[in-house]
Parts: sequence; structure tokens; C-alpha cells
Amino acid sequence: MKKIINTPEKYVEEAMEGIVAAYGDKVEFLNGDFRVIVSKNCRQVGKVGIVTAGGFGHLPVFLGYVGEGMVDACAVGNVFASPAYTKMEAAIRAVDGGAGVLCIYGNYGGDKMNFEQAIEDCEMDDITCKSVVVCDDIVSSPKNEWRKRRGVAGIVYVYKCAGAAAQQMYSLEDVSHIAEKAMKNVHTIGIALSPCIVPEVGETTFQIADDEMEIGMGIHGEKGIEISKMMSADEISEVLMEKLLTDVELQKGDEVSVMINGLGATPLEEQMIVFRRVAEILKGKGVSIFMPHIGEFATSMEMAGLSITLFKLDQQLKELLRFPANTPFYTNVNK
Amino acid sequence: MKKIINTPEKYVEEAMEGIVAAYGDKVEFLNGDFRVIVSKNCRQVGKVGIVTAGGFGHLPVFLGYVGEGMVDACAVGNVFASPAYTKMEAAIRAVDGGAGVLCIYGNYGGDKMNFEQAIEDCEMDDITCKSVVVCDDIVSSPKNEWRKRRGVAGIVYVYKCAGAAAQQMYSLEDVSHIAEKAMKNVHTIGIALSPCIVPEVGETTFQIADDEMEIGMGIHGEKGIEISKMMSADEISEVLMEKLLTDVELQKGDEVSVMINGLGATPLEEQMIVFRRVAEILKGKGVSIFMPHIGEFATSMEMAGLSITLFKLDQQLKELLRFPANTPFYTNVNK
Repeated sequence: MKKIINTPEKYVEEAMEGIVAAYGDKVEFLNGDFRVIVSKNCRQVGKVGIVTAGGFGHLPVFLGYVGEGMVDACAVGNVFASPAYTKMEAAIRAVDGGAGVLCIYGNYGGDKMNFEQAIEDCEMDDITCKSVVVCDDIVSSPKNEWRKRRGVAGIVYVYKCAGAAAQQMYSLEDVSHIAEKAMKNVHTIGIALSPCIVPEVGETTFQIADDEMEIGMGIHGEKGIEISKMMSADEISEVLMEKLLTDVELQKGDEVSVMINGLGATPLEEQMIVFRRVAEILKGKGVSIFMPHIGEFATSMEMAGLSITLFKLDQQLKELLRFPANTPFYTNVNK
Repeated sequence: MKKIINTPEKYVEEAMEGIVAAYGDKVEFLNGDFRVIVSKNCRQVGKVGIVTAGGFGHLPVFLGYVGEGMVDACAVGNVFASPAYTKMEAAIRAVDGGAGVLCIYGNYGGDKMNFEQAIEDCEMDDITCKSVVVCDDIVSSPKNEWRKRRGVAGIVYVYKCAGAAAQQMYSLEDVSHIAEKAMKNVHTIGIALSPCIVPEVGETTFQIADDEMEIGMGIHGEKGIEISKMMSADEISEVLMEKLLTDVELQKGDEVSVMINGLGATPLEEQMIVFRRVAEILKGKGVSIFMPHIGEFATSMEMAGLSITLFKLDQQLKELLRFPANTPFYTNVNK
């Protein structure tokens, strides 16, 4: 296991300490607990709080988006494991400024169960909570059962739009309506080329042959829909886009933001080659691209591969996407 | 060779096309030539132009820093190979706004030879040029011959400070003085855990055993100073910092920016664990950290490993580092 770590047991805690040591001007632990990271001034009277949570090992997701204009607090689990509901509860209580709290999280059993428990407890103390569960991974369930899909990189767009709305003091109802709309407009599909190693396990999560790739694999190594021989960048782009465009209804004149998300070990150069072909395909359909996002947004440690997310935009979502944000891993300058 | 590319021959061109397709609001090709990328409005009357150049395969270095507040133009070579001097010359001519041009590049034979030729040609047409050659890799030559050292990730800090000075309309003499000061204040050392593959070659640039790492390896796979058994994150941090602190004179009360630079395949989580220990070591010496940079700044495609750069600051360099910048791969919001 070739990882730059100390011990598997300290992996999450030490990485979290590094983040707070680096970005202490933006974020801090809640009461010294590395399991809950909050934005500086995370509780603002009259502002809707935005909370998220999830397992570790996906940086920048989830906690990396805690900061100005995005998420106010994040509960952090172990690698690929949901945090305890008590941590989510602490996060919700920490950001409640009287206007209610929106919980945005990916559609995984543990996170869902724990958030529901946390919300129930908070509501007993009259904190109004709403939830938006992100389920953007199109291969993980058919379209007619899309609420069963897993949440992957598209969550970043949901944070961005909800965070911008909350920052502008929209009501809880409006912020959650926007988050729900953004969530319904994100669709993602990925491929994996190589596995990752969970530190506490010490061996690769799955095997994949030297000349093969897996289409539709989840960010925890969940089985995809097809193992195929390695394809060229253009072929990969075409195969993934074909599946996305079957799911997303796009028409001439539509605008989308495209996210090319490296899973950890895939070079930026390769992501750019994929973006090039994706842009050509969209141009061919008369669809224009607004504020593309290319880089690492939701990873699986050292997994190689990438995902493509299409985020269908309207005027409101465009303005929210453009709104300034300043977090340790996401900076947007509105020009 | 498990790369998401089309053909090795088209690797650079297609990645460059992807970059311009994505960030066409910030950068463009010079006269349609993918070998020279320029910032929008790269020529401003009275502003010193900043030009760089280098081989491909190190994204975001070099061309990713072309944009507002950093670099005005970059000539782009093949993978790990210097561009032709004619491309550097075109870049210099494109950005000359009458106040002269500063060329900032890493200390490699090809880049140096070609920049010297390009500058000679431009000066015949009365474009005043100056050069700052970055040589921050401390293991590549002893301290008393530091001008022979290779240039690595520290160049990003030199771009940042010189670019901020140029943006504020400092004279060529002042901008190059600042760049030279920044260059003398950056010191870098790296480790490699796994090799990369140059697409046109199709096989790994070197071998490294499964339980080993190489200290001091260059970003093109240049031989390091020591092959050792894999160490823990804290041990790696301590070994690298010990070597850096022998070379850099730091005293209690000094301020530095620290860059933890992933070489391509090393997860952010691991970079954070290293930063944590580096911050502890500096704190122990009474040295404070200003604006740390953690992520991928100068890579070798899919190489695993990282480098640590210390950038010793004074008041002027701090202000220049804080100055806003907005390039495809580097955004700074001055707060």
C-alpha cells in the first residue's frame, strides 16, 4: 500500500487537521471536534444554514465546499462511511440562525438514515429543516426510478446554487426549491480505470485489467454497467455523452455547465482532451456551455478515471452559479 | 498504456484545444496557433508583458497561469520538451506594450537556449527584454552552485508576484527585480512514488519498487538523491523539511508561504496530512505560514508523489501574493 499517511486509524483526523491548519481563515472545527467542520461565522441571523455530510476520501467533496457562498457545515465520517447522526445534528444546530437549515447530501443509505434521525431531533427543538437528496448518477437506477440513483459529483452544483441563494438571504422554502431544481438538473456518468485503496483495508477495492475500463462505476467502487476494452478519449466521451443525452432532455438553444471530474489519479491533460470532445458534441446539438468545471471535485483518493456531469441551466441557476464563492477548494470570482 | 487520449501525436494539441474551449473568456491561441496561448488583452500599453514557456505534461504549469494578474503568454512544447524559439519570440512580440517584457522560465537547457535566441531577435526590433530563470529544486545542485538548479513548482510563486507587479504598472526594472527576489526565495524538494508515461514513448519513464520512494526526483523523472523504503507521511515531511531548512535560512518571526504540490496521482487527503506536519515543524521554529498553496500546481501527468516549496516572504512579496489573479487554473480573491 503506497500511501503517504501515518496510520490508517489517524488518516481522517490528520487530513482534517491539515485542512484546518491550512484554511483556518475560512473554516474551523466545531468545538474542536474534527468530525464537524464549519465555516467561519457559520451562524448568521436570518440566513438559511446549509449543511452536508458524508464519508471521507472524496476530497474536495464533501467538506471542501464549506465556506463563503456554499456550505456552512459538514459532518465527516470515516473513509466511505457515513458519520454518526449526532455529528449531523451538531452541524445543523451550529448553523441555525432562525431561518431554518437545508441539508444537502448524496443518496446513500447510511447518510439518509442518519440525516433523518438528526433532523427529527433538531425539529423537536423547533429548528425547521428541509432536505435535498442528490441522486445524479444515471447508471445506478433507470430513469423512471431516478430517486434511487446514487449521488456523485453533481452535488457540487447543488451546493453552489443553494449556497448562493442562502447567501442572498432567500427563505428556506426558496433555497430548498432552488436546490431541488438544481438537483433535478444534474446528471452524471463516470468511468474507472484503476481502483483505490481504503487505508484501513489496505488493499484495492476491486480489480480491473490493464487494458480495460469500467463504465458507470460508483465513487466507492460500486459495480458499473459494463466492462470494456480501453477506448480512446473521443470514444469515451461519445459513449458517456450518448448515455447522458438519452437521460437529459436537451434542445437547441439550451445552456449547460459541464463538469469533467477527475477521480484522483487522472491527469488534467486527459480531462481537457475529454472536455474538447464533449464541447464538440454539445456544439453539434446547438447547446452552449456556461462556466465549465474541469478538475477534481469528487474523488476516490487515488482512483483513476473521470466523470462527466451535465447541469442544465436556466437564468436563475446561471446567476446563482456565477455568484461569488470562497471555500478552501472552490473559488469563484464573479466578473 | 492506460491513458485517456486519442493518439500520442495529437495529445498536446487536443489538450490545448480543450483548455481554450473551456476558458475562452480568459485565454486564446495566438493567431490560431496552439503552440502560443495568450491572455485576453495580453498587450496593454505601458504594462510590462510576462512571458513563459516550457514543455507540456505539467498542468497547470506552465500555460495554466496565463491570465489576469499572472502571465500574459506562454509558448508550449511537446511533452517534456522545450518549444521552438520562434514560438517564444511570437509570445514576446504579442505581449509587448512598449514597457518591455519579462521572460520567466525554469532552468532547463532547451528552454534557456531557445529563450536567449528569441530575446536576441526581439531586441533587434527594440523590444526590451529581461529574464528570470527559476532554479528552486534544491537537490539538483549544491547551494554554492544554486544557479545550476532545475526549476520546479516554485515558479508559480514567481509568476504570481511578477504578474501582480506588472498588473500594477510597475516598470520592467521593478518587475524583474521583484521576480528575481521571489525566485531567490523559493526552495523546493520532492519525492516520487511512481513514474509517468510520456504518450509518444508509451512506457514508464523509470521504475520504482512497490515499497520504495525516491527523494529528490525531478518532474521529468530526473534521478534523485536517494531511493529509500516507503516512509510515513510524518517521516517524509520531516526528511524533506530538514533538507529544505538546511538550505533556506529561516528565523523565528519569519513568514513563508508553503506549497504542497501533488505530482498528479497523489490524493489531496495525503497532501493535507503532509501539510499538517510541515505546519507543525514551522510552528516549532516560530515561523508563520501565509497563504498556503495545496493541490496540483506543477505535475508530471500521472506520476505519484509530491513536492514541498517554501517561499520566504517580506511585506512586498506578501502584498503581491495577495493581489487578485484570475487564470484558468489559479484564482485568488483578495479579501
